[in-house]
Amino acid sequence: MVEETHIQLKLKEIRELAKKVFLANTCSTEMAEVLADVIMLCERDGPASHGLFSMYSYVGSLRNGISNGKANPVAEYPKPGVIRVDGDNGYNQFVINKFTQELVNAARETGIATLAIRNSHHIGPLRQDLEPIAKAGLVAFSCVVSKALMTSYKGNKKLFGTDPIAFACPRKGKEPVVWDMSTSSMSFMEIEVASTKNEQIQPDSAVDKYGNPTLDSVAAMDGGMLLPFAKHKGSAIAFMVELMAAGLTGGRFAFENSTSDDPDFAGANRGQTIIVMDPDIIHGPGFVDRVSEFLDAYLESTPERVPGDGRLERRQKAILDGVRVDRELLKTVQSFL
Amino acid sequence: MVEETHIQLKLKEIRELAKKVFLANTCSTEMAEVLADVIMLCERDGPASHGLFSMYSYVGSLRNGISNGKANPVAEYPKPGVIRVDGDNGYNQFVINKFTQELVNAARETGIATLAIRNSHHIGPLRQDLEPIAKAGLVAFSCVVSKALMTSYKGNKKLFGTDPIAFACPRKGKEPVVWDMSTSSMSFMEIEVASTKNEQIQPDSAVDKYGNPTLDSVAAMDGGMLLPFAKHKGSAIAFMVELMAAGLTGGRFAFENSTSDDPDFAGANRGQTIIVMDPDIIHGPGFVDRVSEFLDAYLESTPERVPGDGRLERRQKAILDGVRVDRELLKTVQSFL
Repeated sequence: MVEETHIQLKLKEIRELAKKVFLANTCSTEMAEVLADVIMLCERDGPASHGLFSMYSYVGSLRNGISNGKANPVAEYPKPGVIRVDGDNGYNQFVINKFTQELVNAARETGIATLAIRNSHHIGPLRQDLEPIAKAGLVAFSCVVSKALMTSYKGNKKLFGTDPIAFACPRKGKEPVVWDMSTSSMSFMEIEVASTKNEQIQPDSAVDKYGNPTLDSVAAMDGGMLLPFAKHKGSAIAFMVELMAAGLTGGRFAFENSTSDDPDFAGANRGQTIIVMDPDIIHGPGFVDRVSEFLDAYLESTPERVPGDGRLERRQKAILDGVRVDRELLKTVQSFL
Repeated sequence: MVEETHIQLKLKEIRELAKKVFLANTCSTEMAEVLADVIMLCERDGPASHGLFSMYSYVGSLRNGISNGKANPVAEYPKPGVIRVDGDNGYNQFVINKFTQELVNAARETGIATLAIRNSHHIGPLRQDLEPIAKAGLVAFSCVVSKALMTSYKGNKKLFGTDPIAFACPRKGKEPVVWDMSTSSMSFMEIEVASTKNEQIQPDSAVDKYGNPTLDSVAAMDGGMLLPFAKHKGSAIAFMVELMAAGLTGGRFAFENSTSDDPDFAGANRGQTIIVMDPDIIHGPGFVDRVSEFLDAYLESTPERVPGDGRLERRQKAILDGVRVDRELLKTVQSFL
């Protein structure tokens, strides 16, 4: 079914287009392959905002040198449980792709291990970083820092990134359980979209530029700031993400990050932490059976999906049928070639 | 200043009383020392609900055999980053006290390590578990599972515990930053107190026994259930806590835990996970300076305290002046002797 405004594309067509665009915009072949996968996987699983639409950001940062399309990340191994990587100002997904197997091996050797990435960028959901780890039978938790968009609880200055966290866990006979979320109440993009329609936003989602609570999406976008979910609780979690993903890795805190406002500032130096645990060691045999018992109880108590499983339903459909892409968006992405 | 209804007690008087009560209620000397510290520290730092008031729960569970006052936790060391402990049905604080130094040593050896506790109980905040680790210069994250009190987002059955999480980080020239929080929107005790006064509770804090949202504290207590903070986001975090603190350790999920409803059920078998990271290894020298830079930015953006610091202010006052204790509560605790 094809509409005037949209076109149905196969996943491999999306991947092919994305790869060409990355290659045409400073990326090494290796980087282009990984980022093309990311775009394709986001179109496949959602959110689409991190798929072709996010190529505006990728291409912008690659063209103006904010990020390094030819990054050559270098790892140090200071102790058996730590892989410490300087991302060479490339995208984290590339770093993670390169070191996932080593991280899995380290966790199997020590029971728990961490990949600590500094001097790097992340656009996109964390789901794709963790899913391969859980597919290998391990449990993973990750957090990442971005530029400052969010204030703290009762705050009046931009301090935190949207500071996403993610969790992944293997599951018997099925794709792993994976969820990811930002620590903001609403996403920047949701508020941006609301502001184009002059719609109200949810309470406790944003403040105006003076730090006053607002329901006015336009005021929120006009120098305003996002708010963390759950007031002081979400604020404390974002606080932890900053210290774990930026502080501990040697990355830059969100408040130090002004890349988008200053295109000449080439060193974004963000950070990400992935912690991986081997259930065969910590729990012993039978962990996935226990996960099944828990998931059964969850589904019995909740007429909802297991967290993150919405994406799996979307995935099946996208693999079979491809996905709907806005023709205007497609034209823009093609113009990056 | 002494009032009719309250009495001012020195911290060491509280500790001494608590120790005597634990000794008189099946505890070994070693266990009594640790639990008396917990009670004293909760009275010192707050919340007071976890101090003398919580001795109702401790004494109840010790007397009816739900928990083991003479527990002898046994550790296994399956890999260098994992200390795996069977709590012998004792309280986690005792287990943690016993293995904190080993956990710190393991994290220094491998860069990251975990203490995975199963077959154990936890009453009280996680702050005191993590503060000694951060005082040793390490970063820590913990989660613990309890009995089912909370439903999932849009759920209609008790599934999760209040599933607290905690974070601790060293700080230059000052006590560490430590925060802990439950993943429920309001605490069970807040709703219980509201119900005695027939007061409304906050929106999205609880559902009635049918799973319908309610502002009625009495309906919430009458077979109702707590709700996680931040709707599906808090629900997903509680979901992770169950899998990390119970699933991964070999503990019992909250939904499997019916200790309080069934006093004859002696095997509570809960779980707790503590993850410890060594910033000297992951970050390298200078981590606490980076923490200071972040805290400066935090305080500049927020006319609030650093998360968890409210407790430190309370602490100074309590060390100097002691704390106010309700005379009726004191009488009850003394009656446990």
